Amino acid sequence: MFRLPRIQSALLTTLTLAPAVAFALTGCAGAPNTTSEPGDVAIVIHGGAGTIRRGDLTPELEAAYRSALEEALSAGHVVLRQGGSSLDAVVAAVQVMEDSPLFNAGKGAVFTSEGTNELDAAIMEGKTLMAGAVAGVRRVKSPIALARAVMEQSPHVMMAGAGAETFAMDQGLEIVDPAYFFTQRRWDALQRAKAEETGPQVTAHFRDPDDKKFGTVGAVALDSDGNLAAATSTGGMTNKKFGRIGDAPIIGAGTYANNKSCAVSATGHGEYFIRATVAHDICARVAYSGISLQQAADEVVMKELVEMGGEGGIISLDRQGNIATPFNSEGMYRGSIDKTGKMVIQIYRD
Amino acid sequence: MFRLPRIQSALLTTLTLAPAVAFALTGCAGAPNTTSEPGDVAIVIHGGAGTIRRGDLTPELEAAYRSALEEALSAGHVVLRQGGSSLDAVVAAVQVMEDSPLFNAGKGAVFTSEGTNELDAAIMEGKTLMAGAVAGVRRVKSPIALARAVMEQSPHVMMAGAGAETFAMDQGLEIVDPAYFFTQRRWDALQRAKAEETGPQVTAHFRDPDDKKFGTVGAVALDSDGNLAAATSTGGMTNKKFGRIGDAPIIGAGTYANNKSCAVSATGHGEYFIRATVAHDICARVAYSGISLQQAADEVVMKELVEMGGEGGIISLDRQGNIATPFNSEGMYRGSIDKTGKMVIQIYRD
Repeated sequence: MFRLPRIQSALLTTLTLAPAVAFALTGCAGAPNTTSEPGDVAIVIHGGAGTIRRGDLTPELEAAYRSALEEALSAGHVVLRQGGSSLDAVVAAVQVMEDSPLFNAGKGAVFTSEGTNELDAAIMEGKTLMAGAVAGVRRVKSPIALARAVMEQSPHVMMAGAGAETFAMDQGLEIVDPAYFFTQRRWDALQRAKAEETGPQVTAHFRDPDDKKFGTVGAVALDSDGNLAAATSTGGMTNKKFGRIGDAPIIGAGTYANNKSCAVSATGHGEYFIRATVAHDICARVAYSGISLQQAADEVVMKELVEMGGEGGIISLDRQGNIATPFNSEGMYRGSIDKTGKMVIQIYRD
Repeated sequence: MFRLPRIQSALLTTLTLAPAVAFALTGCAGAPNTTSEPGDVAIVIHGGAGTIRRGDLTPELEAAYRSALEEALSAGHVVLRQGGSSLDAVVAAVQVMEDSPLFNAGKGAVFTSEGTNELDAAIMEGKTLMAGAVAGVRRVKSPIALARAVMEQSPHVMMAGAGAETFAMDQGLEIVDPAYFFTQRRWDALQRAKAEETGPQVTAHFRDPDDKKFGTVGAVALDSDGNLAAATSTGGMTNKKFGRIGDAPIIGAGTYANNKSCAVSATGHGEYFIRATVAHDICARVAYSGISLQQAADEVVMKELVEMGGEGGIISLDRQGNIATPFNSEGMYRGSIDKTGKMVIQIYRD
């Protein structure tokens, strides 16, 4: 079993980690020089929540996740530092994770019961409350790019299935063969899910730590104009049936942004997140109860969802740059670069 | 041009209309005897909002709408009076409107750009926050029954397209040939929409008053156990493309119920209702701002939506039996039977 050195573990529990240290820990040459230009921008990302325990990941896999999370954070942050919009930043961050086979979004998406990959995504802009969402697309390389096209290039907010793909082609977005989304790891996970469904509980079987993870990727950002944005992209649940749609593409559930309150992207057992209208509920508590983002996020994720039995977590950000990332699962792949330029990347609870 | 007698028009503007008078006005022999058993139950329904002006409807068509609305109200109210659940009541009311060719839901649904009918529906229970929704189904006679089956018989909240139909068949729900949903009126509306799209503006053409209506049907109810429920069913927008999904099946946008705040069903330009998370926002204002249902509903429908340019309205109900039905369009087919047993059926603004 791999364990982080105690000192690193302790450092990773806090968001006040100095950038130089974060640098040293994550050790990626391509990371932004966040100390020189703190600015008033911030970005938070997640790569899914669930049963991710220290020791579940090999050192190599953990390093790969940390590196990918840092790459995503950096891709978003560089947009913000250069004066780009929060919309551009969340798309840049999410696309890095969509393109990585490590995350359940884009390349690396889980398989449906029928052995296909059906992808969902949503995006929302806090200034205008413009939003775009897609569900059940099978051939669009970047679902978050399609969600943005729905928002900006159509009169609609949400499109699904083959119709959404037709729109993607009309828009000239990159179309891929469905085989592009194949990864052996996710295919094996589908076979394990099917074996468990039909046979006796096969607990002795090899389990991928991701089998018990609600894979989704997402980002929220605050740009130098003070505008918030949120984006979420996912392959949904392994072995999903019946054209199931989760919370990711549901505006107000898995994705929401409003300059008057906050921006949220969620990851978890989507059915509960829809029923609890998680993303909008957090922002509504901030707007109408006047409580802090942290308190609102904690109330929804650590109390309401827990009482319902809904496992998962969220990332959130307000216009003051406050960050809250509560999760009630054992772990959540997450990272942030706050207004002072401090970067943190975390996986486990403690 | 048909005009209501002044006295009837005046009476219909108020919710304090005595049931005997409502009876006389609507004149349906099958209406419940609401004076003898007022009880603590209530139901509110809508049959769509939009440009519905006095004079747009022939006397015969107006009478048909009023009769259908009364039948739907009665179907729901009888369930409640007999001690049935608010869930059963909203399904009963919505199914009457789904089965009527007058409304854009079930039989009578509008056509997509491809000449098909793609139906959406959602239901939510205020006590448990259980919810079910379906999008883009083409062969299920009662989409609201399917939404309820998704809620009660599956681990999911939302299903779409062919997958949702497979689930409907597994559940033994009534499957119909797509031709079941054909109505000449909606087919003609599609042809007019396509003509406007491709040719010059043909304002001289015949217009059906429903061309400018956001057709949706919905119901909210309060049962004798004090439980709220909400249900919405729709055929979406005439000439819709790309697998567009509107607000009706989006929990928190077109449909929401929570015993802690209120139950809401919306009808309008769905894209705006999703972006404004209308149904949840009204309930959140009640829950967190402590304002009345009427005030919360007015803030969202008459202010937030108007500022965004979102046309339509909502019906809503809280556990005290308070009813609010604001709409910013010219008309909304609507009706209610309040806790005292008073029935009102209205179409126009004044």
